[in-house]
Amino acid sequence: MAQDLRSQEIKNPIDVAEYLFRRLHEVGVRSIHGLPGDYNLVALDYIPKVGLHWVGNCNELNAGYAADGYARVKGISAIVTTFGVGELSAVNAIAGAYSEYVPVVHIVGYPSTAAQKNGMLLHHTLGNGDFNVFAKMSTQISCAVSMLNDQHEAAVLIDNAIRECWLQSRPVYISLPTDMVQKKIDGDRLNTPLDLGFPANDPEKEDYVVDVVLKYLHAAKNPVVLVDACAIRHRALKETHEFIEKSGIPTFVTPMGKGAVNETLPNYGGVYAGDGSNTGVRERVESSDLVLSIGAIKSDFNTAGFTYRISQLNTIDFHSYAVKVRYSEYPGVRMNGVLKKVSEKLGKLNIESGPKPSNDIPKEEVASNEPTITQAWFWPRLGQWLQKDDIVITETGTANFGIWETRFPADVTAISQVLWGSIGYATGACQGASLAAKESGIKRTILFTGDGSFQLTAQELSTMIRNKLSPIIFVICNNGYTIERFIHGWEDSYNDVQEWRYKDLPKAFGAKDGEVLTYRVESKQEVEDLFKDQEFASGDTTKLRFVELVMRWDDAPKALKSTAEVTAKRNATN
Amino acid sequence: MAQDLRSQEIKNPIDVAEYLFRRLHEVGVRSIHGLPGDYNLVALDYIPKVGLHWVGNCNELNAGYAADGYARVKGISAIVTTFGVGELSAVNAIAGAYSEYVPVVHIVGYPSTAAQKNGMLLHHTLGNGDFNVFAKMSTQISCAVSMLNDQHEAAVLIDNAIRECWLQSRPVYISLPTDMVQKKIDGDRLNTPLDLGFPANDPEKEDYVVDVVLKYLHAAKNPVVLVDACAIRHRALKETHEFIEKSGIPTFVTPMGKGAVNETLPNYGGVYAGDGSNTGVRERVESSDLVLSIGAIKSDFNTAGFTYRISQLNTIDFHSYAVKVRYSEYPGVRMNGVLKKVSEKLGKLNIESGPKPSNDIPKEEVASNEPTITQAWFWPRLGQWLQKDDIVITETGTANFGIWETRFPADVTAISQVLWGSIGYATGACQGASLAAKESGIKRTILFTGDGSFQLTAQELSTMIRNKLSPIIFVICNNGYTIERFIHGWEDSYNDVQEWRYKDLPKAFGAKDGEVLTYRVESKQEVEDLFKDQEFASGDTTKLRFVELVMRWDDAPKALKSTAEVTAKRNATN
Repeated sequence: MAQDLRSQEIKNPIDVAEYLFRRLHEVGVRSIHGLPGDYNLVALDYIPKVGLHWVGNCNELNAGYAADGYARVKGISAIVTTFGVGELSAVNAIAGAYSEYVPVVHIVGYPSTAAQKNGMLLHHTLGNGDFNVFAKMSTQISCAVSMLNDQHEAAVLIDNAIRECWLQSRPVYISLPTDMVQKKIDGDRLNTPLDLGFPANDPEKEDYVVDVVLKYLHAAKNPVVLVDACAIRHRALKETHEFIEKSGIPTFVTPMGKGAVNETLPNYGGVYAGDGSNTGVRERVESSDLVLSIGAIKSDFNTAGFTYRISQLNTIDFHSYAVKVRYSEYPGVRMNGVLKKVSEKLGKLNIESGPKPSNDIPKEEVASNEPTITQAWFWPRLGQWLQKDDIVITETGTANFGIWETRFPADVTAISQVLWGSIGYATGACQGASLAAKESGIKRTILFTGDGSFQLTAQELSTMIRNKLSPIIFVICNNGYTIERFIHGWEDSYNDVQEWRYKDLPKAFGAKDGEVLTYRVESKQEVEDLFKDQEFASGDTTKLRFVELVMRWDDAPKALKSTAEVTAKRNATN
Repeated sequence: MAQDLRSQEIKNPIDVAEYLFRRLHEVGVRSIHGLPGDYNLVALDYIPKVGLHWVGNCNELNAGYAADGYARVKGISAIVTTFGVGELSAVNAIAGAYSEYVPVVHIVGYPSTAAQKNGMLLHHTLGNGDFNVFAKMSTQISCAVSMLNDQHEAAVLIDNAIRECWLQSRPVYISLPTDMVQKKIDGDRLNTPLDLGFPANDPEKEDYVVDVVLKYLHAAKNPVVLVDACAIRHRALKETHEFIEKSGIPTFVTPMGKGAVNETLPNYGGVYAGDGSNTGVRERVESSDLVLSIGAIKSDFNTAGFTYRISQLNTIDFHSYAVKVRYSEYPGVRMNGVLKKVSEKLGKLNIESGPKPSNDIPKEEVASNEPTITQAWFWPRLGQWLQKDDIVITETGTANFGIWETRFPADVTAISQVLWGSIGYATGACQGASLAAKESGIKRTILFTGDGSFQLTAQELSTMIRNKLSPIIFVICNNGYTIERFIHGWEDSYNDVQEWRYKDLPKAFGAKDGEVLTYRVESKQEVEDLFKDQEFASGDTTKLRFVELVMRWDDAPKALKSTAEVTAKRNATN
């Protein structure tokens, strides 16, 4: 009764669930991923009401991967699961988003607050009356956990979670108990948009850092720029692009930074990853007397097994939380403002040009009469076929190492999971990315996955068909987990997979005649013909395209081979 | 060097991984579920070496479900995953095993102890140098966590984990770092088998409890026995069967206890679940002056929404950890010993007979000319077709409520997830159960799942084909999440699923001609014909059989309807 009176005092009452989904709409979300479950059903009713689209995934892990892919294109995403069984299935995907700095709002339908208080022995519980155990697990992989157990706190907790998600670029967890969904809160609060701006750096401190950076930059004889994942994830691409274009400094990307810069720029030099670098890149980067490193994440697979040879004495690190010049740290100084000012005050620089990567086919491949599609041939050939604005998704395995050899056209978005490296991710991410692409007017989303990886999350193909998405999907058919073979178990059966008839799946998953085009290419000539096929290559079709791309089981990109070797050695070391 | 010397002192050195897998073999495990990953590859080499079979699942969630199903048939199981990405995908399955008391040994391949100590930025980490975060999450859903970071502790930790898994009948977590796999430990330890016996009750205490139980039993005018899940999970079936057969007391099972007792016994009375009970059962149980409740788990879905009406004043509870007589508790007295002695000293009892459930088709169904397969018709009809020793797996949804109306032949093993209720479970569990059946000489494993549920874990069908298993699979085609519709969202699209061509999947998943028989039945007559088909019904075939069983989207077993109604009400309650 007291609550009823209170809600009468609200001028413009709105239900908690509606408030939540309207806030998500405000920050750019247009589709919600997830599955229904009895603890979230009533909340789902609000999704069409506020103009959002419900995706309806096949399972929660796939939904989580899809939400990750969607967020990498649109800047943020949301997934709805149900208590216990639903949320735990998504945990691996959410951990991946945490690891790789991807902003995903995870909304979990909870049992009613009354049932929680009474410790009822409900389904989807561990049977011990503990309703906080799953939230506790998610605390490890979320930058904020908002438990909506009181309507009077709900709006603040929702706003806080979405803001933290955006600013820290990591997942947040929101519990939504069944009885909280329709509770009334103040709708007028929505008239004030969320403040998603990063707090500005302290100007004096920022100027100080800018001067230090410029001092080293002007003194450098052959500086290089190295762009990594956090430049993308922490929303510093605008400042990064401006700096690269204006300065003309030879610029390289790490594997996780692939797609961060315009690879058609004359000063773009290729992928740097220690021993796994593009031809000529390692020499150029490691002989530089100043490396301007933007948004680095120096993980093993991002450095071809820690084979970086760049001295910290020659490095300036730009991060979201600090700038580091040699060994001097400037905490609390965000890269964005510093890069902007450095670009403004560049002055005269010493520029020594770097390598010019191309999509030329390697000589040995040109000379070869072998019709088989090789990894060494395919990835540069792909680069010739890609188009401006393409979204290119590469699975952990031969694909995300192979793509190092592909020079992109302008404005390509590259999606991969180099740090977390959960196989199966790419197929889920493709669903989310191609949906985001459709909403954003981007024409082509192109997936490269392996047969082993595809099997983990294959049913997401069904979700793509259901949502009338039209990505171009390449399944690399090479008889199993090739990346694992190069680490250990060369011919062991545990690295084999069941051989599927991949091309038959779209139809089995309910595709109607003409909705999906399927192909199988087994030779270089067949790839050439496919790439020339206008129906296949078009960005204007509404047809999903599905290709079996046959390669040898024992072939891999050279960067994968060297990384696998280092990994095997480390595994054996005490 | 010191370590080398030490290992020279060991008379019969054995590698840590070999020790682990030999112990698993000793307790009855013959197949290991899981997926390869670079942190577990070397360990996998030991599996064939000790005479175990590697299953090679399509993904870790499915592998976890399969391990659960395998353990329910064979008493214990094991799954191997890789650090981070692999183990987290299995978390939902492990939580389900924890919730439902299923003993699964979860072995996680870890980065080397050196890499852990140095906090290296490896793939499959959160990038924060914390290598304990996932083990911490698993602590919530494991009854023991053994981190094998020191070879000198390894054997003790392995033995302890496997023993706790067996005795507590819940999952345990074992980390196996890459550099620990081949460390030498004392192999002679294996000559002493693990002690898996439950500690005996204190005899004086036990006798006291037995006397109290007998006092109430002799005084009772119309006692009944109610058998629930923990009688199965805590390995008290032998004592339970003896008590039921010898006493002749009318005996009922809960939904989770389905399969615990021989349903062909003259004193078997049917399923008790409050308002969801079989015909005549509720009246008989609730009018009893003494309910002997064995291994109860009184969850919502096990009691048709807490509609039990049994007074604690009329109840004796037998548990693994205590016996409770009315409100008197006797902690530390395990049910097994008490039941055994009570059976020995039964004396004269007052027996008032109970209902006699049958597999007769309900009158309305017999009278109906409607050809459509109804839920009310199907489940008793199924009971007529089942055979002794069948394993029957029912998915959360119409199947695991429908099965309440099926009277089993003798020695049927029923598998369902009534408490955890994670949809998708049953298909994974079917893989594990049918493999366990094959190893145990059990001929038929029969799965009933829904189309919505099947989509979550469909690729496990591929694992069954790969492992040459021959279960009989029924996919109930009724256009989506019917159980959810009955709770909320009757015709809402979020309860729809993409319509697959389910029958085409075995072939797409690589089944060779003749390996899989497929069927579609849309009418009662077609079910009759199918059940009469000897090729289909045989337990001697090596062929997997896959049936599309078409039912109406708006039809459900009556127990599901009443439970859903109570659930919807509770969800809305503050």
